[in-house]
Amino acid sequence: MRILITVLASLLLTPIGATQVSPPANPVWTQVAPGVWKSTIGQPEDLTLLSAAGGKPAASGLAAMPAAVFPLESGEIEGRQVNANTTIRFPLAAGEDIYGLGVDFANLRRNGAIFELHVDHWSSSQKITGRTHAPVPLYVSTRGFAVLFDSARYLKVTVGHGVRLAAKQRPPIIDRTTKKVWHPGSGSGPDTMNWQSQPRSDSIEVLARATGIDVYVFAGPTPMDAVRRYNLFCGGGALPPKWGLGFLNRVRTQYTAAEVLADIAEFRANRIPLDMIGLEPGWMDHAYPCSFEWDKTRFPEPKAFLAEVEKQHVRLNLWFNPYVGPPATPLYPKLLPYAGTHLVWNGIVPDYSMAQAREIFAAHLRQTVLTANPAAIGGFKLDEVDGYDRYLWPDTAVFPSGHDSEQLRQTYGLLLQHVVFDVFHQANRRTMGQIRGTNAGASPYPFVIYNDNYNFDEYITAVSNSGFAGVLWSPEVRGSNNGEDMLRRTQAVCFSPLALYNGWASSQKLWTHEAVKDHIRAAIQLRLRLLPYFYQAFAQYHHQGTPVIRPMPLAMGVRASVDSEPGRLDATSNPYEVPRAARETKDQYFFGDSLLVAPIAPGAQSRRVLLPPGKWYDFHSGKFAGENETIEVAPSLSELPVFVKDGALIPMLADERQYAPRPGERVGLEVRHYGDAPGRVSLYDDDGETFDYERGEYSWTELITRKDAAGKWSGAIVPDANGKRWSYGEVSWRFMSQR
Amino acid sequence: MRILITVLASLLLTPIGATQVSPPANPVWTQVAPGVWKSTIGQPEDLTLLSAAGGKPAASGLAAMPAAVFPLESGEIEGRQVNANTTIRFPLAAGEDIYGLGVDFANLRRNGAIFELHVDHWSSSQKITGRTHAPVPLYVSTRGFAVLFDSARYLKVTVGHGVRLAAKQRPPIIDRTTKKVWHPGSGSGPDTMNWQSQPRSDSIEVLARATGIDVYVFAGPTPMDAVRRYNLFCGGGALPPKWGLGFLNRVRTQYTAAEVLADIAEFRANRIPLDMIGLEPGWMDHAYPCSFEWDKTRFPEPKAFLAEVEKQHVRLNLWFNPYVGPPATPLYPKLLPYAGTHLVWNGIVPDYSMAQAREIFAAHLRQTVLTANPAAIGGFKLDEVDGYDRYLWPDTAVFPSGHDSEQLRQTYGLLLQHVVFDVFHQANRRTMGQIRGTNAGASPYPFVIYNDNYNFDEYITAVSNSGFAGVLWSPEVRGSNNGEDMLRRTQAVCFSPLALYNGWASSQKLWTHEAVKDHIRAAIQLRLRLLPYFYQAFAQYHHQGTPVIRPMPLAMGVRASVDSEPGRLDATSNPYEVPRAARETKDQYFFGDSLLVAPIAPGAQSRRVLLPPGKWYDFHSGKFAGENETIEVAPSLSELPVFVKDGALIPMLADERQYAPRPGERVGLEVRHYGDAPGRVSLYDDDGETFDYERGEYSWTELITRKDAAGKWSGAIVPDANGKRWSYGEVSWRFMSQR
Repeated sequence: MRILITVLASLLLTPIGATQVSPPANPVWTQVAPGVWKSTIGQPEDLTLLSAAGGKPAASGLAAMPAAVFPLESGEIEGRQVNANTTIRFPLAAGEDIYGLGVDFANLRRNGAIFELHVDHWSSSQKITGRTHAPVPLYVSTRGFAVLFDSARYLKVTVGHGVRLAAKQRPPIIDRTTKKVWHPGSGSGPDTMNWQSQPRSDSIEVLARATGIDVYVFAGPTPMDAVRRYNLFCGGGALPPKWGLGFLNRVRTQYTAAEVLADIAEFRANRIPLDMIGLEPGWMDHAYPCSFEWDKTRFPEPKAFLAEVEKQHVRLNLWFNPYVGPPATPLYPKLLPYAGTHLVWNGIVPDYSMAQAREIFAAHLRQTVLTANPAAIGGFKLDEVDGYDRYLWPDTAVFPSGHDSEQLRQTYGLLLQHVVFDVFHQANRRTMGQIRGTNAGASPYPFVIYNDNYNFDEYITAVSNSGFAGVLWSPEVRGSNNGEDMLRRTQAVCFSPLALYNGWASSQKLWTHEAVKDHIRAAIQLRLRLLPYFYQAFAQYHHQGTPVIRPMPLAMGVRASVDSEPGRLDATSNPYEVPRAARETKDQYFFGDSLLVAPIAPGAQSRRVLLPPGKWYDFHSGKFAGENETIEVAPSLSELPVFVKDGALIPMLADERQYAPRPGERVGLEVRHYGDAPGRVSLYDDDGETFDYERGEYSWTELITRKDAAGKWSGAIVPDANGKRWSYGEVSWRFMSQR
Repeated sequence: MRILITVLASLLLTPIGATQVSPPANPVWTQVAPGVWKSTIGQPEDLTLLSAAGGKPAASGLAAMPAAVFPLESGEIEGRQVNANTTIRFPLAAGEDIYGLGVDFANLRRNGAIFELHVDHWSSSQKITGRTHAPVPLYVSTRGFAVLFDSARYLKVTVGHGVRLAAKQRPPIIDRTTKKVWHPGSGSGPDTMNWQSQPRSDSIEVLARATGIDVYVFAGPTPMDAVRRYNLFCGGGALPPKWGLGFLNRVRTQYTAAEVLADIAEFRANRIPLDMIGLEPGWMDHAYPCSFEWDKTRFPEPKAFLAEVEKQHVRLNLWFNPYVGPPATPLYPKLLPYAGTHLVWNGIVPDYSMAQAREIFAAHLRQTVLTANPAAIGGFKLDEVDGYDRYLWPDTAVFPSGHDSEQLRQTYGLLLQHVVFDVFHQANRRTMGQIRGTNAGASPYPFVIYNDNYNFDEYITAVSNSGFAGVLWSPEVRGSNNGEDMLRRTQAVCFSPLALYNGWASSQKLWTHEAVKDHIRAAIQLRLRLLPYFYQAFAQYHHQGTPVIRPMPLAMGVRASVDSEPGRLDATSNPYEVPRAARETKDQYFFGDSLLVAPIAPGAQSRRVLLPPGKWYDFHSGKFAGENETIEVAPSLSELPVFVKDGALIPMLADERQYAPRPGERVGLEVRHYGDAPGRVSLYDDDGETFDYERGEYSWTELITRKDAAGKWSGAIVPDANGKRWSYGEVSWRFMSQR
């Protein structure tokens, strides 16, 4: 007791306002999953990104990964506590390239960056980087590992910036005026070197404004493997329903039930595939703030309306923002005890870090919103959790859980995805939704980020960056008086995770512009025909952690040959160095294993495409396009430039259709083979709508093509011996380069 | 003891990572000086802005202020601790306008602003406001008070943003889709109101990432009085030497002693006044990092050189940045034990929050830099303490005192000004310097902010804003191939706190452009002739706290009539409401009591000028210009638009000269009278070079003009009965509007 009193007394006697800094220490690493290590520095907070996301590591996927040892020299990693903050340092080797650290829209490579990672609406005019819809604090290194800083704080990150006094190697010291170089021990010498204003540092440094933080290291051996381990550790990537990979059309905000049905009929009449209709704020009887009650004026009989929608093979996607009001609406008094100190859009902000609040909201969604016809409602669009500072609660806000503004801001999108996903999961129906702010841990959630930015090049950069972050992102197509603009954007969005047209504020339709409407229809038809291929990419994301979208540096970095046994890296090794030309190639990306997508911007007549090593073929024609080179392409209006690897097999629906196949429906498959190398792919299938795959209700079927001695190609199918669910009927083979 | 143990045990039993939020409480206010109240919320840190600045309240100036009661309803002010942070709320009344909160370059009025106050280089492309050279967390209210948040943290501030759930009056709740209004108790009603995305809140809210903070309230009755109390509380405004109000010319970085002397000779030959020469990095034998040693190549005999400079009546201003190196330089090993963890410009960053480090640096300045001829060195230019994140230490840096990166960043400029000022103060010689990053508490320091921005309109806005912040700011003039550009900038800079030409990187001289050189000479000659007037403005700043530069909203807000007894404001009173036209008038300002300066931008042929109530006269011609109206002026190249109040007296040097009067020198005075009202001013004087004024060695002499019955004007002088030091000889009177 005497000792206790002494200790306690000494704590209390710490002078007011005094500083408290611990010496830097090497964190201790514990393996928490195959190839995944965790270290806790200081006293972490209870609400973190991973705890908000709430995923469980995908044990079987992780177990199937190659064995790995801790991929860094742990003596090069340091953590320390600095007053109420925590700092962490990781080494940055010479030549090491860093990617990730959030889905920004400006560039991919992070060397030299200084960030404050902050959930926000991206703005190109905002020069302080790190503010974006998905500021995921995961960095991916070309040395073959990834690191996650799991904190619900606005993390400050510097990559190779700020030389340390204690660094083993420091840059030469040069007089700026004369360029004389100072040599250790011998004073200044001759003018031989370039003075640099910002010499490179040997570290990646992070400041968390928290008393502690959990840090995770994901081993490779390749950077792609590190990303896979991250996604699997978060629970495996999202697997949407098949209809979620069809086309989504968002209608005008004041549309009535009759207008919505007329819109569906127009899509069918125009033979433009449609699987989802998005209803905007007008489905509610009060929005901004939101009542979460059907509007009886525009939707007098929700049950009959929803039944008719379902009959048309369409799912509704309902918009909401999470700010509840007015006070007279039934949900308001239930959530009021859990409201934060400030209003947003004039509504209360429920504290969804509290289980009670989540349960109230989930119950309301189940009982009031979905109850009229659950099967007709496929998902939600979760709006306005991203910010700009002026559209969210201020940083002084406090919530009933005791969590503060910053913590809720960094996690609000995660918490909402978790609630909505669970509502569907408990009903054993998959969902496909949209979200405007998310963060680390979101990999399992089938919510696709969107925003109000409309810069085409930035959109495509963000698609690329999403592959480093365990999130999904799609550009948007909106109304335009320029048909070519709508066409080029439609073609691009059809090769992104969610294909949609957002007509909430426009009188334009996809068939408004006569000159391009056939091309628009063709792009969306192609999207739907490619469903087996796209679904395969999502199955790999879910079961193997491999991102759906693979940015060029990630896809090309894996090609480095590392025959040496995977092991701890020394201070200079950089085995997955990205070829210089690909380091900042942000305007093209891989969708799945085999399709290299090079979107063409509105107004552009041509563009350059970087083709990696190996032979590449034009997706549309099957013709040889190039090999390890940069080509210039000038596609016609009807085509988006897409390239296919030599030997790749692209499974497609055999026939055009208007909506995704339904469970139990048997559809024909066309397997396209490109180039001259033999092809082999293990094609995933399941019922496409339920979570039965979690209980093993799926199959991986081998598709194989080979050339016989006479040079004649043929294809073969090897069914999955233990597999269940295979929805394809007749399979036709198409050898694209042999025509 | 039992109670103590229980308390201590309960502290220790707090679960790890748990949140800790105190309920909001009304701070307790203690009057710490006449009309100045302080409240401490939580446990403030030891290093604050005021503690770094180190000023002592100017007791006599404060005692001369009108008596005041606490100017707010203290029950409307709230503080609380939220985990490791502190939040503070002040009420924002309907119609109340807020100014201050740092010298930004974009606008004046802060209503609707969301800031993170952060010492930084201003950048117009940086849309997150609050990052600037002087992010002084002082706000000035048109209700007649000011509030200072004294924390060395990046404070987050919202002004009228984020409606509180607990607000007494909340905005109407309107459905965005239909504009139906929801009425309490009766559900929704007819469409009668405009939906607002960001309704106004009733608060100014501040988040300090600290366990506590000191807050100060400065009473009025007028907003100007509140600013005066702030400046006096910080120690009174800076009083530069008279020569500091002359002209400063900065020479090219590699200039030798001979070239500097030749430059002085050229100024004299061209009859352009010159009082200061600025030496750039080349005066040191190593810069970036800085050695703080004279370069023996360019300045082989510093003593002889300095003696010659002194003989020419010129003072040197020596550039430095505070980052010390190379290791071989004598100062380096002395400061190394006090260095922070990171290098800047490849030099160590001394921890000047430690007295030992400050003493080492001060001793080096005294013994090495100044020793050759102290009188010839008038001051320093303290560069690169402002940032951009990439030119300063990262946010993960830590310093030997235990202060962290953020604390040092917010105070570094203050700490350096303090050190340098003390070196001069101890030698009883005044200084005039430049600084690139400063903060609250800087009022007493004669350092003028500068930067690398070069946008004329932004420069002028910043001049205006400096009047709300207790700092001095001057635009720059640099070389240009466009003579008119150099002329218009020179005219503007001659009506700012420091008049200078910065030729560090240019071969252009002030006399390069034949077409404008006479106008440039005239502008600088006028600057020097106005020395008595400008010096008066600084004397008011020092002795009475009145800012040298008075932005329009501050100058016009004082004009409201408040005959009622000054007292606590009720929730809606707003006695110093600024006329709508002046609320955001940022392109003109008062310099001192009587000169309204309206700089004309390069390229502009004319501009609009807002003339406040009362009659206004053209400074140059004495002609009536207007009265309570906005006029359009189209000045010739030779003139900057300046206007004078009816009855104002403008004291000027009677004759042109090449440098400021020296102590003991007797010079003629011309007193100009404008308009038709009688004039009266109490003109300050002292020796102009030493701190003897601190011991009462100064005088206030009454100058009076009146018109006799015959309509003839005359002037009279009433000497200060107790005054000492009056350096003016013959006084001539010039009645500008009676010609």
